[in-house]
Amino acid sequence: MSALTTGVADRIADLAALYQDLHEHPELSFQEKRTATIVAKRLTEAGFEVTTGVGGTGVVGVLRNGEGASVLLRADMDALPVREIEQVPYRSRATGVGPDGDVVPVMHACGHDTHVTALIGAAEQLAARRADWSGTVLAVFQPAEEIGAGARAMLDDGFLDRFPRYDVALGQHVISAPGGHLYVCPGVFMAAADSLRVTVFGRGGHGSAPQTTVDPIVIASAIVLRLQTIVSREIAATDVAVVTVGSLRAGSKENVIPAEAELKLNIRTFDPDVRLRVLAAVDRIVRAEAAAAGAPREPEITPLNEFPLLVNDEVAAERIIAAFTTAFGQDQVHRSGTKPASEDFGGFGSAAGVPSVFWNFGAFDGQLYADPAQPQLAVAAGAAPGNHSSQFVPNDVEPALRRAVEALLTAAGVWLNGRTRA
Amino acid sequence: MSALTTGVADRIADLAALYQDLHEHPELSFQEKRTATIVAKRLTEAGFEVTTGVGGTGVVGVLRNGEGASVLLRADMDALPVREIEQVPYRSRATGVGPDGDVVPVMHACGHDTHVTALIGAAEQLAARRADWSGTVLAVFQPAEEIGAGARAMLDDGFLDRFPRYDVALGQHVISAPGGHLYVCPGVFMAAADSLRVTVFGRGGHGSAPQTTVDPIVIASAIVLRLQTIVSREIAATDVAVVTVGSLRAGSKENVIPAEAELKLNIRTFDPDVRLRVLAAVDRIVRAEAAAAGAPREPEITPLNEFPLLVNDEVAAERIIAAFTTAFGQDQVHRSGTKPASEDFGGFGSAAGVPSVFWNFGAFDGQLYADPAQPQLAVAAGAAPGNHSSQFVPNDVEPALRRAVEALLTAAGVWLNGRTRA
Amino acid sequence: MSALTTGVADRIADLAALYQDLHEHPELSFQEKRTATIVAKRLTEAGFEVTTGVGGTGVVGVLRNGEGASVLLRADMDALPVREIEQVPYRSRATGVGPDGDVVPVMHACGHDTHVTALIGAAEQLAARRADWSGTVLAVFQPAEEIGAGARAMLDDGFLDRFPRYDVALGQHVISAPGGHLYVCPGVFMAAADSLRVTVFGRGGHGSAPQTTVDPIVIASAIVLRLQTIVSREIAATDVAVVTVGSLRAGSKENVIPAEAELKLNIRTFDPDVRLRVLAAVDRIVRAEAAAAGAPREPEITPLNEFPLLVNDEVAAERIIAAFTTAFGQDQVHRSGTKPASEDFGGFGSAAGVPSVFWNFGAFDGQLYADPAQPQLAVAAGAAPGNHSSQFVPNDVEPALRRAVEALLTAAGVWLNGRTRA
Amino acid sequence: MSALTTGVADRIADLAALYQDLHEHPELSFQEKRTATIVAKRLTEAGFEVTTGVGGTGVVGVLRNGEGASVLLRADMDALPVREIEQVPYRSRATGVGPDGDVVPVMHACGHDTHVTALIGAAEQLAARRADWSGTVLAVFQPAEEIGAGARAMLDDGFLDRFPRYDVALGQHVISAPGGHLYVCPGVFMAAADSLRVTVFGRGGHGSAPQTTVDPIVIASAIVLRLQTIVSREIAATDVAVVTVGSLRAGSKENVIPAEAELKLNIRTFDPDVRLRVLAAVDRIVRAEAAAAGAPREPEITPLNEFPLLVNDEVAAERIIAAFTTAFGQDQVHRSGTKPASEDFGGFGSAAGVPSVFWNFGAFDGQLYADPAQPQLAVAAGAAPGNHSSQFVPNDVEPALRRAVEALLTAAGVWLNGRTRA
Repeated sequence: MSALTTGVADRIADLAALYQDLHEHPELSFQEKRTATIVAKRLTEAGFEVTTGVGGTGVVGVLRNGEGASVLLRADMDALPVREIEQVPYRSRATGVGPDGDVVPVMHACGHDTHVTALIGAAEQLAARRADWSGTVLAVFQPAEEIGAGARAMLDDGFLDRFPRYDVALGQHVISAPGGHLYVCPGVFMAAADSLRVTVFGRGGHGSAPQTTVDPIVIASAIVLRLQTIVSREIAATDVAVVTVGSLRAGSKENVIPAEAELKLNIRTFDPDVRLRVLAAVDRIVRAEAAAAGAPREPEITPLNEFPLLVNDEVAAERIIAAFTTAFGQDQVHRSGTKPASEDFGGFGSAAGVPSVFWNFGAFDGQLYADPAQPQLAVAAGAAPGNHSSQFVPNDVEPALRRAVEALLTAAGVWLNGRTRA
Repeated sequence: MSALTTGVADRIADLAALYQDLHEHPELSFQEKRTATIVAKRLTEAGFEVTTGVGGTGVVGVLRNGEGASVLLRADMDALPVREIEQVPYRSRATGVGPDGDVVPVMHACGHDTHVTALIGAAEQLAARRADWSGTVLAVFQPAEEIGAGARAMLDDGFLDRFPRYDVALGQHVISAPGGHLYVCPGVFMAAADSLRVTVFGRGGHGSAPQTTVDPIVIASAIVLRLQTIVSREIAATDVAVVTVGSLRAGSKENVIPAEAELKLNIRTFDPDVRLRVLAAVDRIVRAEAAAAGAPREPEITPLNEFPLLVNDEVAAERIIAAFTTAFGQDQVHRSGTKPASEDFGGFGSAAGVPSVFWNFGAFDGQLYADPAQPQLAVAAGAAPGNHSSQFVPNDVEPALRRAVEALLTAAGVWLNGRTRA
Repeated sequence: MSALTTGVADRIADLAALYQDLHEHPELSFQEKRTATIVAKRLTEAGFEVTTGVGGTGVVGVLRNGEGASVLLRADMDALPVREIEQVPYRSRATGVGPDGDVVPVMHACGHDTHVTALIGAAEQLAARRADWSGTVLAVFQPAEEIGAGARAMLDDGFLDRFPRYDVALGQHVISAPGGHLYVCPGVFMAAADSLRVTVFGRGGHGSAPQTTVDPIVIASAIVLRLQTIVSREIAATDVAVVTVGSLRAGSKENVIPAEAELKLNIRTFDPDVRLRVLAAVDRIVRAEAAAAGAPREPEITPLNEFPLLVNDEVAAERIIAAFTTAFGQDQVHRSGTKPASEDFGGFGSAAGVPSVFWNFGAFDGQLYADPAQPQLAVAAGAAPGNHSSQFVPNDVEPALRRAVEALLTAAGVWLNGRTRA
Repeated sequence: MSALTTGVADRIADLAALYQDLHEHPELSFQEKRTATIVAKRLTEAGFEVTTGVGGTGVVGVLRNGEGASVLLRADMDALPVREIEQVPYRSRATGVGPDGDVVPVMHACGHDTHVTALIGAAEQLAARRADWSGTVLAVFQPAEEIGAGARAMLDDGFLDRFPRYDVALGQHVISAPGGHLYVCPGVFMAAADSLRVTVFGRGGHGSAPQTTVDPIVIASAIVLRLQTIVSREIAATDVAVVTVGSLRAGSKENVIPAEAELKLNIRTFDPDVRLRVLAAVDRIVRAEAAAAGAPREPEITPLNEFPLLVNDEVAAERIIAAFTTAFGQDQVHRSGTKPASEDFGGFGSAAGVPSVFWNFGAFDGQLYADPAQPQLAVAAGAAPGNHSSQFVPNDVEPALRRAVEALLTAAGVWLNGRTRA
């Protein structure tokens, strides 16, 4: 197996430059045109058969290399409407147009730039070292993971018919953990996610005459506080649920009480019953808080998107853990627990009826965020920025990219190269 | 005095058409270019000496008509960032660029279109009936009343030096009351207003990992609810204070916990001590609620604008009440109490050291909003829309415009035409 | 008139001792047995015809002194379930049994001890100086003012039939203002008050398993915060309303989530429409907040007591102001505005169809509470303790008692002694 | 092993009568005098050496029966300050004096009456069937489990020195699950618990003059709502924490704003770091919410009690699971997960340095609480009342008592009777 990763180290300087370029030019979901162009160009140059515009802005590269298993490797390409803080010279100053038509700042605050970079690196390495493996590789660059729509869009665009069948789907995600480390969770790995838009209707009026109005900002605030009680009071402490209000927008002028307020909610659960209880509680609380204010009209609650549970195939995951441990040593490979984050990657496995495995890799040097008295606790304690934070900029880039490329190659190698398996 | 208002009825159809045009084309504060152009054209045609661009987009028309007193008549021209509901064929579909650079809908939700229309009507009538009065009239069309900046801008632009001195300043504002009715309040009439921007800083992150964040939407919501206690608990019930959060904006994506939230507050008071207590309480609550969440940084609280108290000169106001009562009958003229709304009109009186009087006129046929069982209560009960509401579209336009024109002429007549006084 | 007050100064040492004794032995509403016994004894010794047990624990003393007007003077006797802080040597350590059967601390936290003392002083002086007036005096010591039930109870006990008719009813109340000062408000003086008991039903359970419960403490807390919005958002700033939750009780053990919570509310208004709006809003909020939690049963909202508006007869009040001003000087006599406090005293006037007047007297030396830099502002700024506070212990007792006795005599003298009126 | 349980069925009618008597006469922590007297009498009659007054009201019975292992069996005796609803003829009408000196209702709302009954049944059976086992049995009836103080009190009273050494400590607790079923959790079983008393200081005053006060009921309510955010925002969804406010008491009269409010909190955690984060957050929130109101004095936060983690010895637990499964069948024996409830039982194991195992048994026929359409879901769905609820009265008593006695005998038999083990 080491043959597949030989020489990866020499690619890192180039990949780091690519990464900085992608980081500086993030694009919102389904708007990943510049990224897709770069991806297509490099895959083509490496010798892949490349198809663009799959499911919108998705790119698929296929490399056929004789007999053997077929492996799908997937990276997601989209960024988020977050304003990046000043931290690195290649920080994003990009803007985009959000779903509401607003111009918003854009940032790779979830690190998909590292995913794209690592998969390009792995693809180029696979192309360069055709002699060391046999089979077929699909390099899939997916749009719009952040809104749970990109995998679905590619599959709906004839993915299974248009490209070679595959035996396993593999993917990875960067997290706030030390560069070089890998985290694999056999079985249930990530949460189901439901996003909702809640519009609360009051009655607008002059800021000095609240008695002529029904103040939707007060209703929205009461909803936000009362929603906290779902997790704190209605769900068993040993069950898992997250209810986040990620956006609250109402009014624009200080002396005008607006007529309505809009909240966007995101809900994470691992259990169908818990999910239904949370959704019912959200509905109940939103309606009752509007009623408490005497709102003239019922709130509107509309689904925005929905992610299924992400379940790693246990047998495949154990094979990957074994391969990682052999390749990188026990210190660098960890079994992780379930996480309340969500992913639409699983669709590539379930739609094809094949196993899928998704793992995490670190890219943050915890020492930099550490309590000086307890350096080892820094990352664990959450002192490093989390995904989606405006500070989520990897500070341990080169070790992280190298390990992410090696991880893709090593995991793929489990299927591509029978000789490496005992 | 009746000579001054003779023939006003014949002007109403034309004025109503002008009103509908202004209503359909509202402009935000300091952006009243179209309105100012129309005003300047009609004043010029009527024979006024016209100066434009005073204090930005303000227009001043002067009509000299021999010996006698000099009277300033003022209308404000700006509209609000409110989206008008579908109610009338001439509803606004206009947009403008708000102070934050956002594109926002614009509506004459405070009825300044009626003010402009009525003052044009009064100016044209005064020009047409020069024989019936003597003295000087200043017709002042002010920008940017909504942000408390227009009167100040005109005065700072040399107003007192560039235009004739005046003996009294008069103005009026439409309210949600029956067309034809006038409301005058001798003494303290309107509130001092303070507007503040509050920015709350949390720590952003992934919607599924709130434990890595400090959620600013929760902080902002707690602030909104806790601010309610200032009026309910900290100010005597017999004192007057209003604390409104007119805008709350945080985040844009449901699964990203944002790093900050912005609130815009508007505060109304009639008493300097009460004002200081309210401002101190806002500061205390905002800081403590941020501390309750363990916010990594103190909130920022910055003033947006400030309106002084509006005080009607008692002697001048009584003279106007007497003239209104003689002209329109006791049934149509009311003494009103203080109101928590605010106005920057008073600056024209205080800067010149002359009395000023500001009154209200109605333009809403309460029957249309009424509880069918108690039609007489409709307007009093607040069933008609209040100023700044997206429904604040007068439904009794022609009687209201006629009375508003007559009111300006009658009040001005108190000074312009000594012969009418007993 | 000065004849009536001659010698009052000599009674003050004795009255101050009586006051301290009453202060040290406060009794709850309808439990004023010790107080009534003292009152009856002193009135009898002074020569009054005394009836006890009127409306429970009420005492009525009648002194007939020839021809002339008949004047009712009223003091209330009951204390409150408040624990007095250590401030004076004669502080209360008393306890009583509250309406719920609980043993509670008791304190004269509303100063009714000063009312009883002053009326005893005035009664003894009237008895001692029969030569200086003619007519009839009714000295009425009423129970249970704090629960709005004592005046009603005395009237329902045949008061009007059993005792002489009277031409005017007079009463007074101590406030946190300087000793020696009097405050009279012609017209509407005090608020209507409604008290409600709200019982919220959840579902109890183990503190570690909130998901099996509906937590009534969370519901009650949400109600308390949301009730603040009635005054802050639903009532015009220029109207008057107070909504206070004076008691909130739920649970007793930290690891048992209780099944219910009880709140006691007190509402003050001056306007029947505002009152109805507030009561409707309380009902709406309580029910909606229970619904927000999925409460298994509707809350119960039951009236506890109700006070009517207190309106001072304008003519009678002006006569008293004139008499006070002549007697005590303009500096010591003030016209006051309406107050959101409540009183059941007015029943003695309205039931008999005669005018009634109720005034305030001060008993607090503001200097002691003052900001050293602005001593004159101390009381006005609310630095002295307010009625019902555990610190509401007059610190200017002798001047206050003297003036309170003189005020009763002077006001009564307006009716009892025609010779003193111009 | 079956020899030990032979004849248990014949004891159940007598035990059910004992249970009903105990249920009807519950006693608060450290006040279990009547219960202890009954226990001591029956143990003595059965032939145990009995010691009373151990750690207050604790009772220890020792039965020596030749060579072999020594087993401690423990039941807890205390009840809770909960008012039992009318459900069964033997419902409690008892009252007791709480720690604050209040008279409170008392109920066996945590089912310790079933524990006492089952241990008496097991002890009597062991005494009756001495021929079927050998070794020593300690039957320990502990006071004051609910306040986390009874095990500590018995150990501090010389328990280890005064009574025979033992090889294992066993105990059980009734839960809301079907009668006959047993639930065992090897490893970490129950949470650490911290209880706190929080006293919030405002400034009292008259209900109509909140501006002279700092309203502690508003502060307490804001604290309750804000505390919900600890679990919902500050602790990872995959970590376990519960923050319950079990008691909130402030004021007694509706028109008196009290000077302070008291909250009692209960906190459950499984991880020392999480515990410290929760305790720090409670402290931060309580202080900040007091600051938000301008409280004149810092809140006081004092610990009430503290329970350690309850960890079942894994080897011993597996042996018990095996024995249960053999005796009662796989359908009746379940592996359970960790629970956020807490127990002080573990002290008997840790203090002696021996393994301890604690399990649950059911006593509720879920059918009775069921949705008629889905009877099988009733208990799982939480429709049956939870521990500490005023409805927590087992409705499947005889099957539950029989199985609870059999469980004690079977588990004890693992150590007492080598012949039964393979």
